[in-house]
Amino acid sequence: MKVRVFVGLKPGVLDPAGEAVKGGLHHLGYPDVASVRCGKFFDLDVADGPDAEARVAKMADQLLANPVIESFRVEVLP
Amino acid sequence: MKVRVFVGLKPGVLDPAGEAVKGGLHHLGYPDVASVRCGKFFDLDVADGPDAEARVAKMADQLLANPVIESFRVEVLP
Repeated sequence: MKVRVFVGLKPGVLDPAGEAVKGGLHHLGYPDVASVRCGKFFDLDVADGPDAEARVAKMADQLLANPVIESFRVEVLP
Repeated sequence: MKVRVFVGLKPGVLDPAGEAVKGGLHHLGYPDVASVRCGKFFDLDVADGPDAEARVAKMADQLLANPVIESFRVEVLP
């Protein structure tokens, strides 16, 4: 089954990459961009099973996200 | 309005980061992970307007994605 894991910075954590992108967009002529936050996603192909989603959440907690500054969300893809 | 831009490698483009994550997950005891593809997303807060989605697509094409190896998708967040 295909699963997507979204990993993003927790609210309040500074996002220098997002700030840089915002500056770049202002520079390119889009001054109305008020904020940019960056995140990552991982598309995993894992074995089917009733516990697959929980296992992927464990993978995310162990390897894909840094739980100190990032949160994650698991979404089963159709 | 809040808009999310998904940026991912085009099919067929090698993903060394995804391969490294897959290796890491195998190493951690998840041998059933058949593939991993990495991507990025950007959450933008832009001015409302009928052309907002089209403008964000232009931003993605100009700055957020590398059109040679990446494709993108714009999603308006609720």
